[in-house]
Amino acid sequence: MPRNRGVVFRGANNIVVEEIPYPNFELNVPEQHRKCPHGAIIKLIATNICGSDLHMVRGRIPPKVGTVLGHEMTGEVVEVGPDVENFKPGDLVSVPFNVACGRCRNCFEGFTSACLNTNPLAPGGFYGYYLGGGWQGGQSEYQLVPYADFNLLSLGSKSQAMPYILDLAFLSDILPTAFDACYRANVQVGDTVYIAGAGPVGLTAAACCLQLLGAGNVIVSDYEAERLKLAHVMGCQTVDMNSIAGKTHGLRGMIRSLLGGGKLDPLVEAATGGEKYVDVAIDATGFESCGHHGMSRQTNEERSEAINDIIRVCKPAGHLGIPAVYLPGDEAVSDTFGKVRGGLTLDWGIAWQKGLTVTQGQCPVKRYNHHLMNAIYGGRLQVAKYLNTRVISLDEAPAAYKNFSQGAAVKYIIDPHNMIPTSAKKAAMADPSASS
Amino acid sequence: MPRNRGVVFRGANNIVVEEIPYPNFELNVPEQHRKCPHGAIIKLIATNICGSDLHMVRGRIPPKVGTVLGHEMTGEVVEVGPDVENFKPGDLVSVPFNVACGRCRNCFEGFTSACLNTNPLAPGGFYGYYLGGGWQGGQSEYQLVPYADFNLLSLGSKSQAMPYILDLAFLSDILPTAFDACYRANVQVGDTVYIAGAGPVGLTAAACCLQLLGAGNVIVSDYEAERLKLAHVMGCQTVDMNSIAGKTHGLRGMIRSLLGGGKLDPLVEAATGGEKYVDVAIDATGFESCGHHGMSRQTNEERSEAINDIIRVCKPAGHLGIPAVYLPGDEAVSDTFGKVRGGLTLDWGIAWQKGLTVTQGQCPVKRYNHHLMNAIYGGRLQVAKYLNTRVISLDEAPAAYKNFSQGAAVKYIIDPHNMIPTSAKKAAMADPSASS
Amino acid sequence: MPRNRGVVFRGANNIVVEEIPYPNFELNVPEQHRKCPHGAIIKLIATNICGSDLHMVRGRIPPKVGTVLGHEMTGEVVEVGPDVENFKPGDLVSVPFNVACGRCRNCFEGFTSACLNTNPLAPGGFYGYYLGGGWQGGQSEYQLVPYADFNLLSLGSKSQAMPYILDLAFLSDILPTAFDACYRANVQVGDTVYIAGAGPVGLTAAACCLQLLGAGNVIVSDYEAERLKLAHVMGCQTVDMNSIAGKTHGLRGMIRSLLGGGKLDPLVEAATGGEKYVDVAIDATGFESCGHHGMSRQTNEERSEAINDIIRVCKPAGHLGIPAVYLPGDEAVSDTFGKVRGGLTLDWGIAWQKGLTVTQGQCPVKRYNHHLMNAIYGGRLQVAKYLNTRVISLDEAPAAYKNFSQGAAVKYIIDPHNMIPTSAKKAAMADPSASS
Amino acid sequence: MPRNRGVVFRGANNIVVEEIPYPNFELNVPEQHRKCPHGAIIKLIATNICGSDLHMVRGRIPPKVGTVLGHEMTGEVVEVGPDVENFKPGDLVSVPFNVACGRCRNCFEGFTSACLNTNPLAPGGFYGYYLGGGWQGGQSEYQLVPYADFNLLSLGSKSQAMPYILDLAFLSDILPTAFDACYRANVQVGDTVYIAGAGPVGLTAAACCLQLLGAGNVIVSDYEAERLKLAHVMGCQTVDMNSIAGKTHGLRGMIRSLLGGGKLDPLVEAATGGEKYVDVAIDATGFESCGHHGMSRQTNEERSEAINDIIRVCKPAGHLGIPAVYLPGDEAVSDTFGKVRGGLTLDWGIAWQKGLTVTQGQCPVKRYNHHLMNAIYGGRLQVAKYLNTRVISLDEAPAAYKNFSQGAAVKYIIDPHNMIPTSAKKAAMADPSASS
Repeated sequence: MPRNRGVVFRGANNIVVEEIPYPNFELNVPEQHRKCPHGAIIKLIATNICGSDLHMVRGRIPPKVGTVLGHEMTGEVVEVGPDVENFKPGDLVSVPFNVACGRCRNCFEGFTSACLNTNPLAPGGFYGYYLGGGWQGGQSEYQLVPYADFNLLSLGSKSQAMPYILDLAFLSDILPTAFDACYRANVQVGDTVYIAGAGPVGLTAAACCLQLLGAGNVIVSDYEAERLKLAHVMGCQTVDMNSIAGKTHGLRGMIRSLLGGGKLDPLVEAATGGEKYVDVAIDATGFESCGHHGMSRQTNEERSEAINDIIRVCKPAGHLGIPAVYLPGDEAVSDTFGKVRGGLTLDWGIAWQKGLTVTQGQCPVKRYNHHLMNAIYGGRLQVAKYLNTRVISLDEAPAAYKNFSQGAAVKYIIDPHNMIPTSAKKAAMADPSASS
Repeated sequence: MPRNRGVVFRGANNIVVEEIPYPNFELNVPEQHRKCPHGAIIKLIATNICGSDLHMVRGRIPPKVGTVLGHEMTGEVVEVGPDVENFKPGDLVSVPFNVACGRCRNCFEGFTSACLNTNPLAPGGFYGYYLGGGWQGGQSEYQLVPYADFNLLSLGSKSQAMPYILDLAFLSDILPTAFDACYRANVQVGDTVYIAGAGPVGLTAAACCLQLLGAGNVIVSDYEAERLKLAHVMGCQTVDMNSIAGKTHGLRGMIRSLLGGGKLDPLVEAATGGEKYVDVAIDATGFESCGHHGMSRQTNEERSEAINDIIRVCKPAGHLGIPAVYLPGDEAVSDTFGKVRGGLTLDWGIAWQKGLTVTQGQCPVKRYNHHLMNAIYGGRLQVAKYLNTRVISLDEAPAAYKNFSQGAAVKYIIDPHNMIPTSAKKAAMADPSASS
Repeated sequence: MPRNRGVVFRGANNIVVEEIPYPNFELNVPEQHRKCPHGAIIKLIATNICGSDLHMVRGRIPPKVGTVLGHEMTGEVVEVGPDVENFKPGDLVSVPFNVACGRCRNCFEGFTSACLNTNPLAPGGFYGYYLGGGWQGGQSEYQLVPYADFNLLSLGSKSQAMPYILDLAFLSDILPTAFDACYRANVQVGDTVYIAGAGPVGLTAAACCLQLLGAGNVIVSDYEAERLKLAHVMGCQTVDMNSIAGKTHGLRGMIRSLLGGGKLDPLVEAATGGEKYVDVAIDATGFESCGHHGMSRQTNEERSEAINDIIRVCKPAGHLGIPAVYLPGDEAVSDTFGKVRGGLTLDWGIAWQKGLTVTQGQCPVKRYNHHLMNAIYGGRLQVAKYLNTRVISLDEAPAAYKNFSQGAAVKYIIDPHNMIPTSAKKAAMADPSASS
Repeated sequence: MPRNRGVVFRGANNIVVEEIPYPNFELNVPEQHRKCPHGAIIKLIATNICGSDLHMVRGRIPPKVGTVLGHEMTGEVVEVGPDVENFKPGDLVSVPFNVACGRCRNCFEGFTSACLNTNPLAPGGFYGYYLGGGWQGGQSEYQLVPYADFNLLSLGSKSQAMPYILDLAFLSDILPTAFDACYRANVQVGDTVYIAGAGPVGLTAAACCLQLLGAGNVIVSDYEAERLKLAHVMGCQTVDMNSIAGKTHGLRGMIRSLLGGGKLDPLVEAATGGEKYVDVAIDATGFESCGHHGMSRQTNEERSEAINDIIRVCKPAGHLGIPAVYLPGDEAVSDTFGKVRGGLTLDWGIAWQKGLTVTQGQCPVKRYNHHLMNAIYGGRLQVAKYLNTRVISLDEAPAAYKNFSQGAAVKYIIDPHNMIPTSAKKAAMADPSASS
C-alpha cells in the first residue's frame, strides 16, 4: 500500500503538508461510518486550490482540525470497489466537487449539489469541507471517491487529455460553477453581462459568456488591478471599483458610459430615459470578499454591496446569478443578524419592481462537466491561460495558500506526482495577450 | 356623448364617486400627451377593487389627487380608433392591467409588465396608478384602452360569457397574477406548495395549484380566521399565524406537523433529518400586509417576515414566487433604508445555501389570460365562489373600499351599468362548502 | 426459498401460467450474464397486462419462447442485495418498466428509457420484452429488480397506499407514459387536445389533461363504442372513427363541428378561414392498432393513418405527441419498407408548413412517477375507475390476454398473492358516471 | 416620387429587372386590399437572393406572373405612415422575411411565422412569395413594410452598422433561420452536430454552432466540393456524399470514422456497441435539393433521403431540426402522394424507437434578430466571409439567379443604390482561410 500525503488544516492560517492514511473503501469519521463498495481510489494528477478553501483556512468557517483540504480533483483510477461497473484502474477521470449518490430524488433531478444521501447534516456532501459530511479532501496523493460510477467523468485516453490537462482540471469545480451561474441566469446570444468580481470564478464566467454562450458584451469589475488586466486581455470591458467608491450611482454611471457606444437596442434606450442596463448580472464576489483598500467587509451594508449592485445595474425582467458563496452563520460579522442567520440588507423593493429572477447556490457539477469537456476538446474553450495558472508541488501548497489569500491574481494547481507535462504548463502560462 | 362617472382619489382615505370626462382617443395628462388612434373605448361591465388599490387609498403610495382608480376591467367595446383592425363595437373583452404597446422589445418577449412605450417614468404602464404613466383608471362607466388590438382579449359571445362573468372578471389581474406566481415558481404535478397570505391573490393562487396545476397539497397561512376558512373550503391545509407568533421555528414546526401524514417521499424525509419542506413557497402578503393583532408591519424585521418565512420552509433546490408587491420608497417605514430604497433584511445566507430560485414582480397578464379564459369555459377553474365575491354598484365603491381596507375577506366587483345577471351573482355567492 | 409462478410465452397466442425459478441477485441469460448486488427481490402485489404485451403475444414482435411476460409491477421488497442502501424488506414500491442503471449519461439526463448499461442490444432495457436485454418479466409472484436504489419508488406505508392501490399500480407504466406524452407535447392550461385512440394509454392521457394539466377541452377518437363511452364519462368529447371512414377531410370536419361552440379565441378562427385546429394532438394508437371494422392495418397508408390525422388537425406552431409504439421491423407488413425499416408514408409537407414540433418514444417513467404518486395521494388524479379496471388472479391471465387482444375496453391487473383489498377493487369498478 | 425598379418573375426561368410602382401605404392586390397606416417605406441597401427564391424561379412553386421577388431586406426608412411611433426617416433597419402584425395570438407567442392577420390564405405572410398574401417582394429600390413598429429592427447608426453590413444583411433571413434550427433542436455546449447540406443555410447553421452555441464538433455533408471547402475553412469536418452514394450504412460508417478520435463520452461508445451518434442532426437540404451527379430528387425515396439520414445518425433521445423547406404540393413529383400532399416515406419506426424530438418550419425571425445583431456587433459572429458573399447591382440579378440555380457556392447580395462601401465588400470577400 503506497504512502499518502496531504494538505492538512491544523488551525486558522495553519496549513501543513503531512502524511495521511491511504484510503480504503470506507468512510470512517465521527460524522458517519459507512462502507463504500461503490467507491474508487484515485491517484491525483491535478488538485487545485479554490477560493472557497480560503474561507476555511482563514478560520471564517473552520473545518475540524486535521481535515485534509481540497475538492477540485483530476486523476487516475488505481483501484475500484466490488460494485463499480464502469471504471477500471488506469482510467483518467475528473471528480465533481459535489459528493453525490446518484440514487436519491435530488441527484436524479440534477441537483447533485443537494444529494440527500452523502451528508447527514444537510443536503449536499463535500470533500474536505466545513460540515461537508466528513469526506476526505483531495489535496493529497490519493483519495477515495464514493459512488464512482455516478461521480466520475471519463476524460478519454491520456494522450488525448494531457495536452489539455490544465483546462480539464477546472472541470471539477470552477468551470462548471461559472458556467452554471451564466446558464441558469439565462445568458442569451448577444446579451450584455455584468460580472462583479474578477477572481477565478468571475473570470471563468466571463470566458463562458464570450466563448461558449455568444454574449455580445461582458463587463467585469474588481478592486484589484491585476485581475482586471486578465479580464481585459480576455476581451471584457472592465470597471475599477476603486474609482467609484463612495460615489452615488457610481456603478450605474460607469455602466452607462461603457454601453454608450450604441451597441444596445436604441428603442430600449429611449424608453428608459437614457438609462443603460445589462441583460444579466452575476455576483462572483461572496460573503468574504474584500472592498475598497482591501478592507474586509463586515457591516451588513458592506456585505450586501455586490448583490445590491447587481440589482441596480440589471434591466427590468432581467436575471441575476449568484455563484458567490453566502452562508448562514458568519462569525466575523458583528451583529447577530449576520452572525447567526447570514442575513443581508437588500434593496428588494427595486428587485421586485424590476421583476428580477434570481438563481444561486452550489453548482451541480455533473450537469455540465461532460458538455464542457467536449467544448475543451473541440477547441471552443480556453480558460487556464487567462487565469494566470501555476502548477506547483504538494509541498508548495502552504505558501500558495498564503499568496492566494492575499489577493494574488493567480490560480494554483497542485501536481502531487509531478505528472503534468511541461508543455501543458507552458501553454497555460504563456502571455495570454499574445493569443487573444 | 354619454355621461361618465368614476371612483376618484381625493386624498388619503378620501374616495368619492364623481363625474369625469368621457374618454376620447387621446391621453392628455401632465405625464405625457399622445394620440391613441390604436385605442378603443370600453363600456365597463365588471371593474374590480384590488388589494393594490388600498396602498394608494391609504396614502402609502399616493397617486395624484383627481386620479380615477381601477385597473381590473371587463367590458364591451363601444368605439374604436382608426388604427384598430381586429375589434368592433359590441365585442366583449377583458383588459389586462398592464398598459402595453405590443411594439417594443419587452412586449414581444412577453414582458408586457415592462413595456418601454407606455410610461415615460419607468418600464411598465398602469391604469389609475401611482406613477403609472397617467392612464385613466377604470372604476368608471367608460374608459380608453390604447393599443386595443394588442391589449384586448375577446371573450366570445355574450351568451357564452355572461354565466361565467364573475370568474372572467378576474382575468384582468388577480387570476393571471396568481397563476403567473405559481407557474414561474415551477409548481409541478404532485408538489406541496406553501402560500403566505389568504387574500384574493393568495386564495386564487391556491385555486390555480389545486385546479389547474395538479399540486398534491397546498398549505395557506394568514392572521385572519375568515380568510383561512375560505382556503379550507377550497381544499387547502391552513396555518393560523396568530398561533405561532413569537415562537422560534413556529412555522417550520407547523409545516412539519401538517406534512407528517406520510404523503411525501420517505427518502427525502430520512435524508433531511425528519425536516419537512415544501417544494414551492409563495409570498402573497406584500409590503403593507398586517401582522399579529392587525398591526401594520413597519420595522424592517416585520416587513421582511413573509419572505424570510418562505426562505425557511422551502426545500433545497426549491422555488420561491413573490407576487406580493414590494416597492422602492415606502413612506410609512421609519428608517431610510426602508423609506427610500424599500430595502428588506433577508436571511440570504439560508437562501443561498439551499440554492433557491426566486421569481417575482408584476405579472404580464397577456401571457396567461387567453389560456385561463379557456380553462374557465372548459369548466376546469372556479375562483369567484371561493373568494366571497360581491357585486356592487359604482356608488357603493367608497364603502367597499373602507370595508376591504379593514381586512374583510371579500372581493368586490363594481358593475357600473347593472349589467351582470342575477344568476351569475348567485352562483358566485352560494356557499362554496356545498360544492367542494 | 418460495415457489414462483409466472405468465410464460410459449409461442404466438400461446400463453401459459407455469412454475418459474425464484429470482436471485443475478441475471443469467444468453443476452448477458451479470451479478446484481444492487438488486432487490419483489413480491408482486399488482402486475398489469399492457397493450404492448399484445404485440408479443400475437407474434408480431415475438420474444424468445419461455420468456416471462410483464413490465407493470407494484410490490413489496422481500430481499435486497449487498449494495442496496435505501430499501429494506417490507417496503412497498412501484417499479418503472424501464430497466435503468442510474450511472450512465442518459439516465442522469433523465432518459432512463435509453439506459446505456442494461441492454447490450440497444439503449434501454425492458422486463419481459422482445429484445429487452433478457430481464425476467413480472407477471409472476416474485421478481428481481436491478439497481434497486435507483429504480424503486417508495409508496410509503401500506395503510396509506392500499386504498389507492389500483391507481398506484399504473405508476409503473401507463400513467407516466400518458403524462409524458401530454407533458412533452406541451399541453398548457386551457388547451384543446385531440387524442387518437381510447385504449388505456389514450384514456389515461385524457385524464392527465383534464385532471392535472388544466386542459380546456379534450377530444378522443376510436373505432370502439365501448371505449368512447369511457372517454365520455370522463368528460371528453368523442369522435367515432367509423362515422367518418372514407370521407375526405372527415376528421377535420368533425373537429370543426365539435369546436364550433365558440370556446376558442375568435381571432384565431377568423384568420384561419373558419378552420378549427387543436393546440396539441396525441397519437395513442400505434403500429398494430386496428382500423374500420376491426381490420388490422397493414398497408403503409393504413399504418400511417393516425399520425397523418394528428398532422392535419393540429394548429400551426402546435405540438404532436406520439406515445403509441412504432418499431423498425414489422413482420406483418407486406412491403420491405414497412417490414424492415418500420417506415411510414407521412404528410410531411403539411407538418413542415405548419411548423409542428414532434415528441415521441418510450417514456422515462422515473421522471414522473414520484410527482404522479403525490397527485394521487393528494386526491388530484383518478384513473382506474375510468378504465374499467379488473383485478384477476395469475391463473386468469391467459383468458384476460385473449379478451384484451380482441379489443375489450378493460384494463387487467393481476394480483398474484390475492393481496388487493376488496374495498379498493370495488371503488375502481364502481360506475364512474356516478362520480363524474 | 422617386422611380422604382425591381426583379420581376415573368414565368419559369424568366426573371427580368423592370420598372415597378413606387410603394404607398396600401396593399392593393387581388389577394387582399388594405390600408397600412402602420407601414414604412424602405430604401433598400442590401437585398439578398435566397435559396427559396429558386423554388419559384424554376417554376416548382410558381408565383403569380409579375410578382416582385425578394424577402431578405435591409435598408433605410424614407417615409412612415401615421400610426408609426418608433421609427422615422433615416433610421437604418433590418426587415424580417415574415410579414407579421404583432397583434394576433401567434405573433405574441413568438410565432411571427404563423401570423393570423397578414395572409388570408394561411397563417404566415411573406414578401414576394408563392401564396404569401400578395406583399411586394424587396429585390427592388423601395418597398413597403407594414406594421413597421413591430417588424423593423433598428441597426443603430450608419457609422456603426456599415462596416458590418454584409453580416447584418443576413439578419433578415438566413442567419435567424439557421440559428433557430440549431436553437430549437437544442444544440448544447460541447455537442456534436451533423448538418446535411452546405448551402447558405447549412453553412450559417455551422457558424452558429461553432461561434455562438459552443458546439464541440460540427460535421457538414454535401454533394458539391466547393461548398464543402467553405465548411472546412470554417472549422467543420466534412462528408462528401458522392463518396458514399449507394453504400448501405454509408453515412453511418462515415460518421463513425469521423468521430473515432475519442472526442465522445467513452461510456456512450461502449454501451452502443461502438456505434457513434451525433447529439443533434439538421436537415438543410429541402424538397428540391439535388442528389448524386446533380440529379434532381423526384422519387419519394430520394426526396426523403436527407430526413432519413438525420434519423439514422442521431443518438437515442436526440434532436432533429429541419429548417429546409418541405411543402404540401410539389408539381415535379411523379406520384399523387408527393404531388398533392408533399408526402415523404420516412423511417419512422427508427425515429420512434430512438425517441427523437423533431422541430421544423419557417423561422420566426423577430425572436432572434436582435440577439444576433448584438452578437455581430460584439465581434462574436462572422458569416459573410465564409459564404463566398458577392455584392451585385440590381441589373446583375438575373445572371446571379442563373448561376445560383446551377449550384454555385456563393451568396448574392443586391445593392440597388450602390451604397455598400467597398471596404465592407472586401472584408467579406477576402480569403476566409487566412483568418480562421
